Amino acid sequence: MAVIEARIASRGMVLPAPIRLPEGMVLPFPEVNLRGTRAFVSGASALAPDGSVMGPFGKVGDTVSVEEAAHLAEATGLAILAGLHRALGDLDRISGWARVFGMVNAVPGFDRHPQVMNGFSHLILDLFGREVGRHARSAVGMGSLPMNIAVEIEAEVLVLPL
Amino acid sequence: MAVIEARIASRGMVLPAPIRLPEGMVLPFPEVNLRGTRAFVSGASALAPDGSVMGPFGKVGDTVSVEEAAHLAEATGLAILAGLHRALGDLDRISGWARVFGMVNAVPGFDRHPQVMNGFSHLILDLFGREVGRHARSAVGMGSLPMNIAVEIEAEVLVLPL
Amino acid sequence: MAVIEARIASRGMVLPAPIRLPEGMVLPFPEVNLRGTRAFVSGASALAPDGSVMGPFGKVGDTVSVEEAAHLAEATGLAILAGLHRALGDLDRISGWARVFGMVNAVPGFDRHPQVMNGFSHLILDLFGREVGRHARSAVGMGSLPMNIAVEIEAEVLVLPL
Repeated sequence: MAVIEARIASRGMVLPAPIRLPEGMVLPFPEVNLRGTRAFVSGASALAPDGSVMGPFGKVGDTVSVEEAAHLAEATGLAILAGLHRALGDLDRISGWARVFGMVNAVPGFDRHPQVMNGFSHLILDLFGREVGRHARSAVGMGSLPMNIAVEIEAEVLVLPL
Repeated sequence: MAVIEARIASRGMVLPAPIRLPEGMVLPFPEVNLRGTRAFVSGASALAPDGSVMGPFGKVGDTVSVEEAAHLAEATGLAILAGLHRALGDLDRISGWARVFGMVNAVPGFDRHPQVMNGFSHLILDLFGREVGRHARSAVGMGSLPMNIAVEIEAEVLVLPL
Repeated sequence: MAVIEARIASRGMVLPAPIRLPEGMVLPFPEVNLRGTRAFVSGASALAPDGSVMGPFGKVGDTVSVEEAAHLAEATGLAILAGLHRALGDLDRISGWARVFGMVNAVPGFDRHPQVMNGFSHLILDLFGREVGRHARSAVGMGSLPMNIAVEIEAEVLVLPL
């Protein structure tokens, strides 16, 4: 088994199935847009193993706690890895994480976005190590997010050619 | 006539003139920043054919409907194409869309950002086809936007060298 | 002395020390993620010369004025240059600014984000000149930002190989 996949399994984690959207909702774009040695990852949500969008839903600082949001950020990381796995065939083709944009659906005075996004960053650094896994990150507060999800993450990743 | 321009004309669409800003407002940056084979598109607004900023203005979910916002997203796509045309000389030089960041000025509980941004995505996929036109997209809610516009879109596009 | 550093000094400006975070807060990522000829800059805050996070804090349009926010945007530019200097060794290695994403922590009806971000853009264009310094910019309003900072800026910069 490939190295990164083996690490995911050894931590008891599972890559979720592709996102299952509500009836009638179709997204006209791919989860991962592979262009040469660059993979652009669409804004992603946390997913349950069956691909359904994972809650809790709502605003961090109101109905969603920082701890719950950090867990959603980690689960969003797994959803992104699942999309990359489908696009690349093998997560070991990832040669470096470039940019990560972490969006938190928060109440107006919320100020702990980094603690939320650490759920994502610690996962990626644990799985890929510091040289490949390090990423330039923003962790910021949005006014609203689709389906009232609490966390959404966009990323750019560098990949080895086949 | 170039292929993409002919398609725009055949759909009865027009590329707007460069943005006309309010008196005294000057933006110290280009609409499109061409760096080698990559074109970075500044956050763009919908424009009327004469380059004036197009309304309706305000928040989606309040004074602006989802349908109006989706139309603004499509018009923003045409404004972006107009900027790319000025920067590249020919839209057929676009070899692939990479990343699209769709920002909706919405009320705090808004949850239909993808339906708004489909106005943009369907235009690009219609004009460029799936291979060139596919893009990694985020569709998210901002707290506020310049001039109270309802939709703003930033993008990165790959271009063929001259 | 290198050219850009000399220009910064000649304008009476100082590159701040690395960010000093509150007790117990550690960010698991670099300020600047250098990948080949591309430098991805993490979301940055204005910093005082000693690296402490610079105020005023809060929302632009409420406790923070447009003029104060424009000054914070300029100071954020210096903080980004400090991070790039540490990552690159020499700011003259910057061959071109690519993308700048300017985030303003603003009240919901705020509409003057470009005036805020001009504090950043004018600094970069003054130091680097138009050919190297031009950048594709978005200037938008967030719902909230970490530590209640008023301005945060993310960027991508192209660099010459060593």
